[in-house]
This record gives sequence, C-alpha cells and structure tokens, in this order.
Amino acid sequence: MKRNKLVIVGVGHVGSYVLADAMKLGLFAEIAVIDIDKDVAYGEALDQEHATALTYMSNTTVHAGDYSECANADVIICAAGPSMIKSDEDAMPDRAQLAVVNSEVIREVMTGITNYTKDAIIILITNPLDTMVYIAENEFDYTKGRIFGTGTMLDSARLRKIIATNYDIDPKSVTGYMMGEHGHTAFPVLSRLSVQGFGEKELDLVFQGKEPLSRDGLKKQVVKAAFDVLNGKGWTNAGVAQAAVTLAKAVMLDERSVYPVSTSLHGQYGYDGDVALSIPCIIGRNGVEKQLEITLDSQELEWLHQSAEYIKETMKVAKTGRNHNSKI
Amino acid sequence: MKRNKLVIVGVGHVGSYVLADAMKLGLFAEIAVIDIDKDVAYGEALDQEHATALTYMSNTTVHAGDYSECANADVIICAAGPSMIKSDEDAMPDRAQLAVVNSEVIREVMTGITNYTKDAIIILITNPLDTMVYIAENEFDYTKGRIFGTGTMLDSARLRKIIATNYDIDPKSVTGYMMGEHGHTAFPVLSRLSVQGFGEKELDLVFQGKEPLSRDGLKKQVVKAAFDVLNGKGWTNAGVAQAAVTLAKAVMLDERSVYPVSTSLHGQYGYDGDVALSIPCIIGRNGVEKQLEITLDSQELEWLHQSAEYIKETMKVAKTGRNHNSKI
Amino acid sequence: MKRNKLVIVGVGHVGSYVLADAMKLGLFAEIAVIDIDKDVAYGEALDQEHATALTYMSNTTVHAGDYSECANADVIICAAGPSMIKSDEDAMPDRAQLAVVNSEVIREVMTGITNYTKDAIIILITNPLDTMVYIAENEFDYTKGRIFGTGTMLDSARLRKIIATNYDIDPKSVTGYMMGEHGHTAFPVLSRLSVQGFGEKELDLVFQGKEPLSRDGLKKQVVKAAFDVLNGKGWTNAGVAQAAVTLAKAVMLDERSVYPVSTSLHGQYGYDGDVALSIPCIIGRNGVEKQLEITLDSQELEWLHQSAEYIKETMKVAKTGRNHNSKI
Amino acid sequence: MKRNKLVIVGVGHVGSYVLADAMKLGLFAEIAVIDIDKDVAYGEALDQEHATALTYMSNTTVHAGDYSECANADVIICAAGPSMIKSDEDAMPDRAQLAVVNSEVIREVMTGITNYTKDAIIILITNPLDTMVYIAENEFDYTKGRIFGTGTMLDSARLRKIIATNYDIDPKSVTGYMMGEHGHTAFPVLSRLSVQGFGEKELDLVFQGKEPLSRDGLKKQVVKAAFDVLNGKGWTNAGVAQAAVTLAKAVMLDERSVYPVSTSLHGQYGYDGDVALSIPCIIGRNGVEKQLEITLDSQELEWLHQSAEYIKETMKVAKTGRNHNSKI
Repeated sequence: MKRNKLVIVGVGHVGSYVLADAMKLGLFAEIAVIDIDKDVAYGEALDQEHATALTYMSNTTVHAGDYSECANADVIICAAGPSMIKSDEDAMPDRAQLAVVNSEVIREVMTGITNYTKDAIIILITNPLDTMVYIAENEFDYTKGRIFGTGTMLDSARLRKIIATNYDIDPKSVTGYMMGEHGHTAFPVLSRLSVQGFGEKELDLVFQGKEPLSRDGLKKQVVKAAFDVLNGKGWTNAGVAQAAVTLAKAVMLDERSVYPVSTSLHGQYGYDGDVALSIPCIIGRNGVEKQLEITLDSQELEWLHQSAEYIKETMKVAKTGRNHNSKI
Repeated sequence: MKRNKLVIVGVGHVGSYVLADAMKLGLFAEIAVIDIDKDVAYGEALDQEHATALTYMSNTTVHAGDYSECANADVIICAAGPSMIKSDEDAMPDRAQLAVVNSEVIREVMTGITNYTKDAIIILITNPLDTMVYIAENEFDYTKGRIFGTGTMLDSARLRKIIATNYDIDPKSVTGYMMGEHGHTAFPVLSRLSVQGFGEKELDLVFQGKEPLSRDGLKKQVVKAAFDVLNGKGWTNAGVAQAAVTLAKAVMLDERSVYPVSTSLHGQYGYDGDVALSIPCIIGRNGVEKQLEITLDSQELEWLHQSAEYIKETMKVAKTGRNHNSKI
Repeated sequence: MKRNKLVIVGVGHVGSYVLADAMKLGLFAEIAVIDIDKDVAYGEALDQEHATALTYMSNTTVHAGDYSECANADVIICAAGPSMIKSDEDAMPDRAQLAVVNSEVIREVMTGITNYTKDAIIILITNPLDTMVYIAENEFDYTKGRIFGTGTMLDSARLRKIIATNYDIDPKSVTGYMMGEHGHTAFPVLSRLSVQGFGEKELDLVFQGKEPLSRDGLKKQVVKAAFDVLNGKGWTNAGVAQAAVTLAKAVMLDERSVYPVSTSLHGQYGYDGDVALSIPCIIGRNGVEKQLEITLDSQELEWLHQSAEYIKETMKVAKTGRNHNSKI
Repeated sequence: MKRNKLVIVGVGHVGSYVLADAMKLGLFAEIAVIDIDKDVAYGEALDQEHATALTYMSNTTVHAGDYSECANADVIICAAGPSMIKSDEDAMPDRAQLAVVNSEVIREVMTGITNYTKDAIIILITNPLDTMVYIAENEFDYTKGRIFGTGTMLDSARLRKIIATNYDIDPKSVTGYMMGEHGHTAFPVLSRLSVQGFGEKELDLVFQGKEPLSRDGLKKQVVKAAFDVLNGKGWTNAGVAQAAVTLAKAVMLDERSVYPVSTSLHGQYGYDGDVALSIPCIIGRNGVEKQLEITLDSQELEWLHQSAEYIKETMKVAKTGRNHNSKI
C-alpha cells in the first residue's frame, strides 16, 4: 500500500526547518532525511522522532537515509549546499562563488536522485535558485514539470507582508507577487496587485498607509527584508521552509494552486530554454501543471529582462547547458 | 479586547524552534521575541512575519521587544542562556559551569519579567532545568504554580518513542514517563507503563519487540537519545520546543492535561521546598494546577532520591536559596 | 485568568456545524451552546464532549447553557431561527414570512445577549441575514462594529469555487467576492476579480475554461449553487459554518483580514443607516474595524442598488427601525 | 501519480459529519461521496466544495459518485443505512429490526465496493456495528484485516470523558477503553485504566472526584451517555465521525496506533471466527495490523462473554454466515 513519502536533501538551517514544518503537516507517512553529514541527518531525524511522542503530533516515520530513499518518494525537497559564501566575515556574500560551489552540489544531488527516480516532484531551495533550477531541469532528462524552485514565492510573501504592514491588514488579504530572480533583481508586479479588489492606484486613498505605495520603494524593501533577516539572525529559513512545504502540500493534494515558482521558460516573454526564473505557475500532482504568462507593463517588462540577464550571468559562472551532463 | 499573547525569551537554537512551532498553533494573536542579541530577535521575528503571508498561516503578529512586552503576556517561554558550555571542542559539556552561568541568566530574565508581571504563566526550558526552575520559583515571589519547567516532558517523549519503536507502534499509544531531573539522572517509571493497558511485564509477551524491555536499558537509552541528537546535529531543539508549545496550549485552552513538568516539591516524596524536579502535574490556565504524587516501587524511589540529590548538587553550584533575591 | 470563549446561539443544521468546526480550531478554551430546545443544546454539547477524548482533539470545554454564558464571551455566533419557511412542501421558501419570524427571533436573542454583554463580537448567520444584521445593529445600542453578519462571505466562496472549477485551479488562487444581499440579489464584483493577477478580461485567454466568463452567468450560478445544495441535501450548512468560524478566528487572532460581511452602511454608496448589506470590511479583535467602499462599475452599481432595494423591502416586512426597541 | 482518496458511503447524519471532518484533515486529495439518494450526495459534496474556497481550507476535490469511485480509493468509510428504527415515535429503537434492515444494506454496499476493489481499507460505522463487520469480513472474501468497524472507539472516548470530567482533567490524559459490543453490552476494562500511571484503585485517593469510581456505574454511564446524546439531539454523529476519521488518518499515515475496533476474532478469548467485537488492535496502512488479546479479570471476562453472546443473538437475526454470499 502506497504511503506518502517526502525526502529532504540537506538539513542545514533551511532543510531542518523544512523538516520541522513537514512533520506538522499530518500529510506524510514517511520522511527521509539525506545530508552529506550523516550525523546531522541522523540527529535531525532523531530529534523529530522524539517530538512525535507528544500529544498532538502525527506519527510520521522519520529517519536518515541515502539517495535510495528517493525510489518511492512522492516529493523531494532539496536544500543542500551552503546558503552563502563569504571571503571573510565582513565581506558581502559572494554570489558568483556560491554559483560555482552549489552548481556542483546540485549536479551531485540530481545524479543521486536520478539513480532512483524520475517521477518524484523535486522542489529546489538551493541558491542561487534560478541557476540551480536550470541545471536540474536541463541537464538530467527528468520528467518535464516535475522540477521547480521555490523561487519568488518567498520574495512574494515578503512583498505581501510589507504591503499588509503598511496598511495594517492581514497579508493573506493581499494578492500579489514578485517575479524574476529569487534574489535582488526580483521585481514586484504591482500592476496586478489586489488587496481584495483594491489596486495599486487606490490603496493610498482607501487605507491609511504608513507610507505611500512606491514601486521602486517596494522593490528595494523586499530585498532589504531578506538582508534584514540575514543580518539579524545570520540566515533566513522560516519563510522559505514554509514556502517549500506549502508547495509540497499543493502537490500532494493536487491543489492546482497558482504560485510564483522558478522554472525554465519555454517561449514566455521571449525566452526559450535559455533561462529559469519565477512566473506564476499552476502547482498540482504533476508539479508545474502550467506556466502562466501574465502581461506586464513596460516598467515590469524592463525589470523582467534585467532580472533574466542577471540570472544568465550567474548561469554562465555555473557553466549551465543542456549538454553539460554529457561531459560528466 | 484581550488578545492571546506569548512572549519568548531567548531565540537561539531552542527558542527559534519554539517560535516556529508557536506560529503554527493558530492560538496566539501576538508573539513577542526577546533576546540579549536584539538583532537576532529582530531577524527571527521578521523571518516568521514573512511566513504569515503564505497560504495556510494565521496572521499572528510577531515582533521583537523588551521585557515590557511581558506586561500583558499570557504565557512566557524562556529558552535564554547557552545550552551547553565546553572547555574545548572535544570536552564533555560542563554542567556545573552551565549552572553558574545560567543561574545568572535566569535571575536576570526573572528580574526583567517581574518588573512587568506576576500573572503570566512562565515555562522554563533553560538548563540545568530543575535548578533554573528552583531559582525562578523561590527567589522572586511569583504567584505559586505559574512557573514550571518543561522538565522530563521531553525525556518522557523519548522514552515513549523508544518503546514504540521497539514494538513498532505509535508512541502516542504508549502512556509513560520519566521522572526526576531533566538530564542524565531522569528515570523511567516503568511500574506505571501502559501500552493501551499492557504493562511492563506483558509487553514482550504480546508484541514482538526488537529487544526485551529493561528498566536499566531504557534509563540509559533515553539519556543516550539526547546525546545522539546532540552529537548528531550539535544541539537538541525540535523535541523540547514541541514540548514547550504543547504545554503553552494546555495553559491557554485550560486543558488540565497531566504532564511531567518540573516544579519545587512541597512534601511529595519527603521533599519540601528544597528541590525542584519533574513529577506528573495537572496543567491548566493557572499553570500547575496540582502536583500528583504517584507511588513508586523501591527501585524507582531509589532512582528518585539519586536524581534529587544530583539536582541538589547542581543547585549548590548555582547558590539557590529563598533569600537569594534579598541580596540583589 | 481569561480563557477564550465562544457562545453559539442556535444549534440546528447550521449551528451544529459551527460547533463542530469550532471544536477543531484549537482556539477556544470554552464553548457554550444555547438553544431554545435545551435538550438539543445538551445533546450537541455532549456529543462533542465525547469527541474531545479522541487522539488529536483539543480539550475544549463544551456545554449547554443560557444567555448568562454571554457575560464573559469573546465571540457569539448566532444561527438561531428556522432557515426557511414553506407554506407546503412543494412551495418555494417564503422569504417574507421568514423575515417576520426571524426578526422576532433575533430581537429575542439580542435581548438575551445584551442582558449580559455589550462587548462580545456577535456574528450573525440567521436569515434573511441583512435584515437581521440591521435589527441587531440598530435596535440594541450595542458597541459599534461588534455586530456583523457572515453576509456574502459564503456567496463569495461559491463564486470563487465556480470560477476555480471552470479554470481547474485552487479556489484560494481566486481573489473575488459577491456584494450586496446574502441571497439571490447578491452580485459578483468581476471588475475586481483577480486570479493571481489575471483579470476578468484575460481569464478566458490564458486558461482553458469550460465555459466563457460571463457576469450574468456567474451571478445566476452563484444563486443556483445555493439552491442546488438546498435541493440536494435539504439545507446548507457546511459552507456558511466554515465562513462563520473563519471570521471568529480573524476576530480572536486580530488578523485584520478583509472579508465581505454584512453591516449597516454609513455613507457608502449613498446609503446612510438605512440598509445593511455586504461590502469588504477589515475584521479584527473589535469586529468590523473598517468598512471599505470599493469603486464599482456601472453595472455593478446598478446591481448594488437593486440589491439594497430588495433588502429594504424585506426590512419593511420585519418592521426594522432604530426606535423599535423603545417599543418593546 | 497516486492521490490520496477517501470514499464515504452514506451521508446521512453520520456520514455528513465524517465528510465535514475529513475535509479538514488536509490529508485527502479527493473525497467521493456515495448515497442511495444521489441528490443528497450531490448536495453534501457541493456544500463542502464551497467551503474549500475559504481561507484556511485545503483544496480537496469533493464530488458525488457511484461505486466505481472505489476502484482507486485508499480508504472507504461506510455510514450507510438508518441509524435506528422505531415502530412508533415513542418506542425504544428496535435493534433486531435494524439488524435485518442494515445487514441487507451492508451486503449491498459490500457488493458495490467489491465490484471495484479488494484493496481499500474499509471502515464501517453502520449499526448494529459488530454484526455488520462480521458480515462484511466473512461473506465477501475481502483481503484480511482491511475491514473493521469503529466499534468501541466511541464508547471508549465516552468512558475517558466521563472519567476525566469526574476528576476534572483532560480526557487525553486518561488511557482506557471499552471492549465488546459497540452498544449497551460494551464494558469498561478498568483493570487496565491508567490516568498517567494512576490506576483504578488509586484515582479516588489522588484526585477529588465528584463521585467514587465504580465499574458498574461507569458501564451504565457510558451507555447512558449515548442515550443522552440520542434523546437530546435525535442522533449521535460528532463523536463517531471523529473516531472514523482518526482511524482513517492512522491508516493513511501508517501510524500503527492502538485503538479498540471491531473485527472477527480468531482464537482470542476462545472465539474463532464466530463473532466480531472490539478488542485493541494496531491500525496501520494495511488496516488491522494485529489484534491484541489483553488479559481480563474475571468480571471483565464475564462481561466479554455476555457481550459476545448478545452480539451472536443479533447475528442470528441478520443471518450471518461465511457461506451467505454463495447464495447471492
């Protein structure tokens, strides 16, 4: 009898939160944890195992394992690889260097996974996210649609929370998202913002905002929010873990929810197989069921192209390419 | 209009998990985070704030703050202080040294809290737990019953999980607990173990256990479980955070659940105000509503006294005493 | 110590589902059930009490009671009164007759409540809803904002589900609502519809809908959906109970979520104290924190006025008026 | 890709609550509803569909259907058939007559199901429960262990709640159950009662009970509790629906929880294939993974035999027998 199974690859700051969140879903009968440091995987699984003996916890089976765990997995969430690389403590994180390191991590992970399955839905969190998605999608001949990245789902949550805080409302009452890169070139699609029907031009008239709505301001605030968390606690994990788990649930329940996630574009906005970035997609039991090309205004389009170009630069560093794996 | 409010003091490895778990309860309208490192408190709160914009999350208000946040708190969970101190990396954790350091942490935290409230229910996690509870309960003239420690609730979860794993059943089908110190002198009360009615002597006859039930074995395995997590991932947090949050829920909903938590004894087992340790207690809206003295067999009693003596040794190091605060 | 408390007035088909849903929230420490038939109230409470002994259920205290239970209630949900009146079995439900009967029910309920509190948030479900809201808000000098009706929150859920089904997506990915009467003159505000940014004019181009989007069609389908449920099972309760409980949660957690609920208008759309109907409102700890007047297009405005007129007709039947209570 | 699927057969008072509870689990991607009255099935499904558009609801697909829905079901919960039959309104329910009517209902349901699957886990609620289980298990050559009844899981919840109320504690802190018939010959296994370690003889000494613990008293109070609900609201559904859904979750997550459920005995207590009644069983992905024979004291054994005899009388009325289906 089939049992719902999640595999988590990489249980550092982010993966350990994915695990913690997933344990509370009451959705997976089994969760396997893979980490390059087997002790950490074992420790994380054991700690969560203990929690299952508490009053309200489902008896999810959780254990450490290796890539063979992927054979019967329904969903695989990958948070492997360092989340940033700094030359020294005071330096800005070196994104190019991160791309070099983590592109090899992702190739290793994908090699591990594809030895056992091409069916499971793979949700990537590893940064630089869009480049990682591109590599995973294009170098391993995996079933189309079954690999995607959390992408701007987190950036979008930040956008909604910032707007919600400004107008003192529930962020779930805000419909809106960031597109493009998961990172500092992500941009808000404010032409499509809706606070239960109130749009970009109306919000300041209807609500008493703390400050006026500004596209540039929001674009910067969302990036700043990430750095504020990073500078504050040293890493970001709570938001992105919840995003990944929300996507996993959408997959398992075949919810067909529309979320902005990162996938390789196939004709949208003039890009065809040459870049991965976040656009709204329908997420269901087969992963990305459909990519949705929403019409952007001129400023948003310009931001999209800037973001795509930026991602391509990172992709070059990571030497992405459809034939890359033939060289391995 | 009163809003349910939780304050978390200390958001390191443990407190950050308490926060993450509490955010998912859908029970608190507001959570305030206090940390000696204000940046960390800010970063943790901000990260969780972003998560509230995701699909299934309640719009709990979360923010960093100072002790004035306690004024209208319903529950305060304290995970402040280091979780272990090692002289060097390979050394065993130095528990005496931890007592010295954290007794001052707890005194500082309690001073901070009591400047603003003597009503909120305070749940302590800081180690060495029982000594911390003793200090908090006895040096600050706080309302009786409203301070307690997670105590052996976690050790008990480990016990149940170990037993459940041995017999391949749901740990929630195991009724049983550890008493005494939260730490390596905790002991299993197997004379009272019940797997849905099956007792200590019957389990091996009815279930196909992987190994025979052994009191000494279980006592050691529970301690080992803690060290396995610790050695594996570097700290333990998932289990204890879930325990703390389960207790907070029992308080807020006035569930009157029986859990083993740490409080100063008042006549039970011959101890009267001279030690704090875990025995089963009824947990409700007023905190510890009642301490329950369960009859132990001779081996368990011996273990209890050993555990009490061990805690007292730690208490001496921390210089506990009812009149301590008069010296401040 | 304050405990979260819900009172449910009327536990027929709807109220019993409100109770069942509320028991699963893990939010209320206590739920009191009031019904004109004390045996039914007792039976419903007792049945739910038994469920609290099952594995994952919170230990919410639930019991039958009288209006004195309202004294310390945080939220009161009223589902009292018959949900329809038919002259004979084959007849269409007689809405005018229902207004006559239930206006007296609501006056009795409000008299009962106001003997004990003017602070609790009152959420009305009794039909004809808008007329009942008007009476409760205007005849009893209750604290402003603390009474509102579930209104078109259910009609809106139906709208979103119909649209979601047409395009095969998650209804939670649809942002949109019905305004006006809770009933057959409710109208969809399609000018403000947003499927994650895709608007009324774009949906048929982007998604493969089963049928083209049509304002008139949707307006009718939403009404038909209610009748389909009614004709199918004999009453409607699941959707509206969930709506009421969602609002209760928004209140208790002070979520400040924007939902379309029914309240008396105070200047919006030219109505000032002469009609109650549903418009988007911010729902928080004080009930309706703010009414939001969204600009409608000409067709929607016409529908709004038709709906307002229709409600006023029902109000006349129920003899509503600010001074009515002086006559009691 | 496999999606978790539940089928509910019969959506009267009980089945409609099973549906409502199941919709809130966030565990099933799809729920199909079958009822002899297709309009009712359609109405119930549609009403729940509307609720999925509300804030916190998972997008579970719910729809009416016929037995072909069982083909890919993971779990089937059967609440078909009337819950009682009275010759006239004031009469006591006629249990013998109910056995005659519902044995035919169960045969029809099982015929419908087995046309499409012998793999799904079937959870029966239809009364007289034990007789229905016996028929379903023994007349249809279904995979062993995959059919069982909610049995005394509800009676046990009532027992725990009654005890918990007496001592003013959380019923989840009470470990204990009823065995035997689901009905008035069910008996409490107080020799195995454990309130977190405190047993039958100790409770009155440790807790201030409202009345002293009495085996006979509890046996009667549990039966009375059922009648109190029945007489109060006209039927019982909340508790039993929650029990069924808890079992369904234990199956889907392979929790291996120990619950008292009804199955045909195979050697336990001297019964071999001649009666079905409730004893503690391990519930996992394969349904009843193991039946557990717990040693009873003399009074409990006597009660067990009385209960078994009573069930056999009912079985005779329903003309149960292994070869019955050969006659169809």
